[in-house]
Amino acid sequence: MLQRQKGVAIWRQIADRIRTNVSAGLYDQAGTLPSEMQLATEFGVNRHTVRAAIAALSDEGLLLVEKGKGTRIARKDRFDFPISPRTRFTAGLADQAQQFSGELLRECMEQADAEVATYLGLSVGADVCRLETRRSADGQAVGRAITWLPGQRFAGFAEAFRRKQSITKAFLDFGVTDYLRKSTEVSAVHADQEDLDILGLTPGAIMLVTRSLNTDLADQPIQYSITRFPADRVQFSIRF
Amino acid sequence: MLQRQKGVAIWRQIADRIRTNVSAGLYDQAGTLPSEMQLATEFGVNRHTVRAAIAALSDEGLLLVEKGKGTRIARKDRFDFPISPRTRFTAGLADQAQQFSGELLRECMEQADAEVATYLGLSVGADVCRLETRRSADGQAVGRAITWLPGQRFAGFAEAFRRKQSITKAFLDFGVTDYLRKSTEVSAVHADQEDLDILGLTPGAIMLVTRSLNTDLADQPIQYSITRFPADRVQFSIRF
Repeated sequence: MLQRQKGVAIWRQIADRIRTNVSAGLYDQAGTLPSEMQLATEFGVNRHTVRAAIAALSDEGLLLVEKGKGTRIARKDRFDFPISPRTRFTAGLADQAQQFSGELLRECMEQADAEVATYLGLSVGADVCRLETRRSADGQAVGRAITWLPGQRFAGFAEAFRRKQSITKAFLDFGVTDYLRKSTEVSAVHADQEDLDILGLTPGAIMLVTRSLNTDLADQPIQYSITRFPADRVQFSIRF
Repeated sequence: MLQRQKGVAIWRQIADRIRTNVSAGLYDQAGTLPSEMQLATEFGVNRHTVRAAIAALSDEGLLLVEKGKGTRIARKDRFDFPISPRTRFTAGLADQAQQFSGELLRECMEQADAEVATYLGLSVGADVCRLETRRSADGQAVGRAITWLPGQRFAGFAEAFRRKQSITKAFLDFGVTDYLRKSTEVSAVHADQEDLDILGLTPGAIMLVTRSLNTDLADQPIQYSITRFPADRVQFSIRF
């Protein structure tokens, strides 16, 4: 049931449909996608439209187009990112990928706005250390985050993160040997231009957005982050 | 930074932008949206495009177009649905709305597939009671769910739900006076045709999808649900 002229291009609707089918394991037995011609017939569109959908999914790393061999499914499952009192980025994905990296894209000291101040228990205008990072697993970008930390306590944090590529390890330099996830809010939106550029997504991609607060063991807020995960690469799991 | 010919219509991109601005509180002081003309200038498009975006958001209940008075923001915040060991649908939203309903759209007995059997701890093919429901808060549809329960233990559950419009209350009829949320997985996808029809959404809307397992106090699985929430109406919050 594709809908013409309803705000989402037909090729994107088909890309979404193929992504859903791949997630559901519909093509598992064959390991390859049906031919462009078969898909065109199935969706009632022409081959160019199917090709545009496949190209977008191939750009995203979901499909692998091999000349003369058809289209393979490069990866079926999303990363499953656990949210718990002990949430850590790398440890959470440890058994799902081999290699992790955390790039520091930007850093600065700034004055806390109302949102950041409330979460971190600071006054509006207090110094906060702001980091923009991109996280990757096995070479694929799986999220980008803006992180704020109390500026006084964590002066120089950006440098520590740059060296260690891990928030958890950078905390060690500041005497924080352990910390707890206090709360996470989850929402979903369409990717914005920065998501597309930084994470290498195609327009219309969906982002899962978390707002998370971590505290030290004395219950002091130490980190507030807004993280944007591509919804076709990541899902969350919460266990009690 | 609107992108032409990239799979998402310009009016939909503008609708997404306006929705983000409303959520961020950008128009809070005025309480009304800037005029069509102002928005057209801001986004660099013509008034028809802005009007299409506003019409879609008005269909969704976010905006209220009043002839000669401009466009009011009908509702700013999403419902905040808590996910915890004690998650209950109505109780979770109790202080955010006045009136709740749970409609039974369809019900049947069926044989458990691999996914349902795994979660409920049954054999594939075992009888399960399947309910399709729509939940509303203050007259607005906030989610639709497919729920499976062990068929033997909960024969007649659909009838109990129909009478009480609440899973929690229907459980009482089967001697389940308390139960716990064991796990929730969260992903996000574009709305499918059933989402649009059942929840009254416009194409391109984003759905937050949860897969949840509840157990009784003896740790027996009693309920597995896949619930689809419109992401512009609902977000989740997880506290530890």
